[in-house]
Amino acid sequence: MTECKAVIFDVFGTVVDWRNGVAAAIAPALAEKEIAIDPLEFATSWRNEYQPAMQRIRSGERGYVPLDILHLENLERVLAAHGVSDRFAGSEKAALNRAWEQLPPWDDVALGLAALKTRYMIAPCSNGSIAMMVRLARFAGLPWDAILGADIARGYKPDPKVYEACASALGLAPEEVLMVAAHNDDLAAARACGLATAFIARPLEHGMDQTTDLEPADDWDHVVSSLTELAASIA
Amino acid sequence: MTECKAVIFDVFGTVVDWRNGVAAAIAPALAEKEIAIDPLEFATSWRNEYQPAMQRIRSGERGYVPLDILHLENLERVLAAHGVSDRFAGSEKAALNRAWEQLPPWDDVALGLAALKTRYMIAPCSNGSIAMMVRLARFAGLPWDAILGADIARGYKPDPKVYEACASALGLAPEEVLMVAAHNDDLAAARACGLATAFIARPLEHGMDQTTDLEPADDWDHVVSSLTELAASIA
Repeated sequence: MTECKAVIFDVFGTVVDWRNGVAAAIAPALAEKEIAIDPLEFATSWRNEYQPAMQRIRSGERGYVPLDILHLENLERVLAAHGVSDRFAGSEKAALNRAWEQLPPWDDVALGLAALKTRYMIAPCSNGSIAMMVRLARFAGLPWDAILGADIARGYKPDPKVYEACASALGLAPEEVLMVAAHNDDLAAARACGLATAFIARPLEHGMDQTTDLEPADDWDHVVSSLTELAASIA
Repeated sequence: MTECKAVIFDVFGTVVDWRNGVAAAIAPALAEKEIAIDPLEFATSWRNEYQPAMQRIRSGERGYVPLDILHLENLERVLAAHGVSDRFAGSEKAALNRAWEQLPPWDDVALGLAALKTRYMIAPCSNGSIAMMVRLARFAGLPWDAILGADIARGYKPDPKVYEACASALGLAPEEVLMVAAHNDDLAAARACGLATAFIARPLEHGMDQTTDLEPADDWDHVVSSLTELAASIA
């Protein structure tokens, strides 16, 4: 078996709690303007625009733009759907868009990443941009060795070029890299590129009534319930 | 005056002592094979191939390849010039090439980068690849927020696209980024792109008889003798 040299991570949902984080970041602005939208529902609505926006780029219909831009466009759609777009100036929308850089890590992340970093190179393999991932890492205390992902591949997961670019940027063969995600489809795409795979359940990513990705959908190389457990199992 | 948001760094010579580091990393292999080449002269000869190799890529004569590959080709030239190329297997040459990932930081770097990181995003803007910069950072304890530089621009400094790509990857305007280097030509290119500039003298980069870059050659925004001094002056 090939020796693992680097561990790369999906971030939104796997490393950080985007739903509660976005809700907490936007709640003050909604309250200040007396807009009666539940912040958690707003976060979910915003996130629901995520895959369609990236799909237009994955399909080639649109050239690559970083996720910051897609998030801002998607925010505009959600605000417009609620009829409140004109309640926010452009600079206020830009400030709201920074919500994605202010997301709390799950409880096991700080210790888990620190333990993994003692032995492996660690990096995000996220659809977030370098700009977004750097600010998020500083906010959440994520000690990445490098910021990999969509920007260096100029494409969006599950496009194979993103996983391949991450391994290549580290000077590694795909089988020397372990992909960690809370999403089965992300791992399936990583495996198809030759990466090793680790599934970590995040049953509260979408709230109490989550129905997806509660269990591993395939025989992933590792199935763990925390990053500390993963670190211990590959120490 | 625009507020500085990020500080980016030349690495070889500015952050780490490549000459003594390369010499120390290759000395055991030379000694083991009883090859009577002074390790410091070997390091200098290797480094002398650096600019011509990059120039072929900057000029468009050759497509972008990461510095790891240029270093390995240059190593081959230096070994051949000494008539000892056939004394090393391919795997031994690849191991020697890792010398550039095992370079000691100058004395002020650990404290200086830690202080700068409390207030600014910090990243290398080096001609080294992501793979090389990640391993060097782990070796030398460089707490970068991201690895920027040649790989993300697919080009080599002083090509303007490298400085522009670093600012753009961080979501910043050029004037929000401060470039730190021990080399006046690097700063001149950064300034031409609109970046702020800081000169730090490294009078021992080339050894005791160094004649270049002992003084600032222009009115750079900051002139300091250590990264701790820089951190204090922009705190």
